[in-house]
Amino acid sequence: MINQERLWNRLALLSEIGKVESGGVTRLSFTPEERRAKDLVASFMIEAGLSVREDAVGNLIGRKEGMRSDAPVVLVGSHVDSVFHGGNFDGPLGVLSGIEALQVMNEQGIETEHPIEVVAFTDEEGARFSFGMIGSRGIAGTLTGENLLSQDKQHVSIAEAMTAYGLDPNEISKAARKAEDVKAYVELHIEQGKVLEGQNLSTGIVTGIAGPLWVKFILDGEVGHAGATPMAIRRDALTAAAKIIVAIETLASKNGSTVGTVGQVGVKPGGINIIPGRAEFSLDLRDINEAVRDEVEKAIREQAQQICDAQGVKLEIELLQRVAPAPCSDLVKDAAAAAFEKLGLETSYLPSGAGHDGMQFMNLCPMGMLFIRSKDGISHDPAEWSSKEDCTDGANVLFHTVLELALQKTNAGVGQK
Amino acid sequence: MINQERLWNRLALLSEIGKVESGGVTRLSFTPEERRAKDLVASFMIEAGLSVREDAVGNLIGRKEGMRSDAPVVLVGSHVDSVFHGGNFDGPLGVLSGIEALQVMNEQGIETEHPIEVVAFTDEEGARFSFGMIGSRGIAGTLTGENLLSQDKQHVSIAEAMTAYGLDPNEISKAARKAEDVKAYVELHIEQGKVLEGQNLSTGIVTGIAGPLWVKFILDGEVGHAGATPMAIRRDALTAAAKIIVAIETLASKNGSTVGTVGQVGVKPGGINIIPGRAEFSLDLRDINEAVRDEVEKAIREQAQQICDAQGVKLEIELLQRVAPAPCSDLVKDAAAAAFEKLGLETSYLPSGAGHDGMQFMNLCPMGMLFIRSKDGISHDPAEWSSKEDCTDGANVLFHTVLELALQKTNAGVGQK
Repeated sequence: MINQERLWNRLALLSEIGKVESGGVTRLSFTPEERRAKDLVASFMIEAGLSVREDAVGNLIGRKEGMRSDAPVVLVGSHVDSVFHGGNFDGPLGVLSGIEALQVMNEQGIETEHPIEVVAFTDEEGARFSFGMIGSRGIAGTLTGENLLSQDKQHVSIAEAMTAYGLDPNEISKAARKAEDVKAYVELHIEQGKVLEGQNLSTGIVTGIAGPLWVKFILDGEVGHAGATPMAIRRDALTAAAKIIVAIETLASKNGSTVGTVGQVGVKPGGINIIPGRAEFSLDLRDINEAVRDEVEKAIREQAQQICDAQGVKLEIELLQRVAPAPCSDLVKDAAAAAFEKLGLETSYLPSGAGHDGMQFMNLCPMGMLFIRSKDGISHDPAEWSSKEDCTDGANVLFHTVLELALQKTNAGVGQK
Repeated sequence: MINQERLWNRLALLSEIGKVESGGVTRLSFTPEERRAKDLVASFMIEAGLSVREDAVGNLIGRKEGMRSDAPVVLVGSHVDSVFHGGNFDGPLGVLSGIEALQVMNEQGIETEHPIEVVAFTDEEGARFSFGMIGSRGIAGTLTGENLLSQDKQHVSIAEAMTAYGLDPNEISKAARKAEDVKAYVELHIEQGKVLEGQNLSTGIVTGIAGPLWVKFILDGEVGHAGATPMAIRRDALTAAAKIIVAIETLASKNGSTVGTVGQVGVKPGGINIIPGRAEFSLDLRDINEAVRDEVEKAIREQAQQICDAQGVKLEIELLQRVAPAPCSDLVKDAAAAAFEKLGLETSYLPSGAGHDGMQFMNLCPMGMLFIRSKDGISHDPAEWSSKEDCTDGANVLFHTVLELALQKTNAGVGQK
C-alpha cells in the first residue's frame, strides 16, 4: 500500500509553485514556474530511489531498473504544467502517484522483470502555445520541426522557448522511443467529469480516449421582415438550426457512449425583427469507438439534410478536425482490473472525453489510464478537487497495475495494443 | 380612374431626390433632401388644386375642401423620408396616390361632404434619430418634448434639427388634431412582404397593424467539458433554447395570423468544446389581435418553462417592449371593400406586420390601410419594386375608398373605430 500522507504532502508542496494570488496555479511550459516544479519533482524522484534524467524535449524521467535492464520499459506518466489559473490535481496527481508507487516498491524491495519509468511530460495542456502534448509527442516520435513554430502571445515560438530553456530544437528526435523498447503506458488522472461521483466510486478504468470530430454547420435560408413574412412562407435558417441541435442531442444520446455538443452558435443579420438568413453552429462529437462516432455523425448529417430540405434551407458542413479515438489496450485494462480485485475495490469502466498524453502512444505501445473522482466534475479551475482518500485509492490501483505490467515476463510489444 | 402616367412620372421624379450613387435613395428627416422632396410634392399638390401648408411638426398637407368645411376631415397619408439606401415606393407611393386621387376628383368636379387632406408625414422611418412616426405622433397629440431629445449619430437632437429646419419644438402641440375633427385615416403602402405576390393579386385590404412584443429569453444551465460530460447528466442551456425556438415556430404557426421570430441568439462561454452554461435569444411576436398574440405568448412561456424544467435549466424572460396592435376599423375596411367591388378587383385581406403611421391614430380616428404587391417582398433596399399596373390598381382603390369615406354624411368619429 502506498504512503497516503507522503503523497498528499507532495501534492501540497507542488501546489505552492506557480500559485496565483487570485486563485489556482499557472505553470506554463518552459517557464521558471515549470522549471521549479520539475526540480521539486526531481527531488521526490531522488527520494524515491530513482535515477533521474531529462530527455531531448524536456520530459523529466525517474527510472527504476528492472531485473532485465534491456527489457521493454513500463512508462507511468502525467504532467506538471497547468492551464492559466488551473487546479492542483490535473497532472501532478499522476506524476506523484507514479513516484509514490516506485518508492514503495523500492522500500519493500520489490523487483520487477521490466524497468519502470515515471515521466513528467513537457507541456500537456497546450496553454502557452495552443499546441500541447509536446513531451508525449516527442516520445512517440511524432513531434515535428513545424510543430515547434507555434508561438505564444508574446510571439515566442516553442523552438525559441526550448532553446532558452537549454534544449536543442534540432535534437527532438532523440526523445523518440522505439515500439520494441516500451512495454506499456499507464496514467492516473482526475476524471474532470462527474461519472465516478455519480457512481459513488473513487477510481475507474478508462476504456479509451475519445477523439473529437469538429464540424461547422452553415445554413442559408432567406432574410425577411419579422412582421411582414407569414410563418408559412419563411425559410428561417435559425429554426432549421434549432431542429438540428435538438436532433444532435437525441442522436448522440442513443448509445450511452457518444457525446455531441454544440458550443458555438450565431445568426445573420442578427436584428431582433429580422428572420435569420444565415445560421452557423459548431459540433463537437466524440466517442472512444471511431466506428460508433462515425455512425452517429452519419445519422446527424442525414437528419440535418432532411430538416434543411423541409425548410428550404441550404446546408453546408465544414470539417474542422477529425481526431481518431484512442481505445485503451486490454493489456493495461486487465492489469488494472486485477489491481482493483486485489484491493477489493468495485471495478468501473468509463471513457475519457478529454484528451491525454496517452493518445500520442496509440502506435507506440499498449496504453491505458485510471481515473479518480473529481468533486462536481470541476477541472481547469482553482475549485478542482479530489479527496485524500480518493487520491490514495487511485495511487494504490496504479501501484498494483504497474506492478502487474512490470512483473509480467511477456514482451507485450506493438502486437498487443 | 386615376392618371397612371402622371402617378408613375411623379414617382420617377421623386426618386431622383436623395439618390445615392451606390443604389437607392437616402432622405432623412429635416435634411436638404427631405426639404427638396417636400418642395417637389408641394408642387404636385398645387398642380392637383390643393391648398398647401405645413403644420407645427413639419407635416406637409394638401387640402381639398368639403361641401361642409367644418366637417371632420378624411386624412390620406404616407411619408417621403426613407431609410439609408431605401427604395422608391415605401412612403412616396402613398403620398403621390393620395394627391393623384384628389387631383382626379378636382378634375372631374367631384365634391365631397367632408374635406380631404393628403399628408406627407415627417419622419416615419426613424432612420435618423432611431425614433420615427414623428409627424403622425404630432397629429395624434402623443409627441412629447422628451421624444425630441433623441439624437442622431452626430448628436443633433430632433429638437435641434426642427429648429434648424425653421420649426419651433415648443409648438409641437399645435399639430395635434381633435378626435371630432377627423373622420378617418387611410393609407396606401407597399406590402413589404410576399403575401399578395403569392396570391397573384395587386392590392389588398389591411386588417390591422401588428404590434410587436419583444422579449429576451435567458437560460442558465451548467458549463461542462464537451468530452467529459455524458449526455445524461448535462444541463445544456443551448439544447433547451433550441427546443424553445422550435416550439415558438410551432405555436406561432398554429393560427395563421401570428408571426414569431427569433432573430438574435448567443451562448456563453462559447468554446467549441464547452457545453453552453448560458443561452440567450430574442423573440419578436406579432399579431393584429392583441388577445390572440397574448394567448400565443402564454403558450410559448408555458412550453418554455416545461422544456427548461425537464432539462434542469433556469429560465428568465425579460420584457423589452409590448406594443399594442392596431386593428383597422370596419369603416375604412368596408369603404375599401366597396372600392374593390366597384373596380371589379378580387378582395383580399392581410395583416401588416410592419409598423406604419396609422398605428398612431388608434385613439384619434377610424384607421385603415391598403397594401400593394411588392416584388419578392423586398423593401428598405434599392431592389424594392412594384409594377406600374399594381401602383395604378392601388391608387384607384385608394381613390374610391377615400371618395366613399368623404361622401358619407355620417360623422363616424371616435365611436366607430
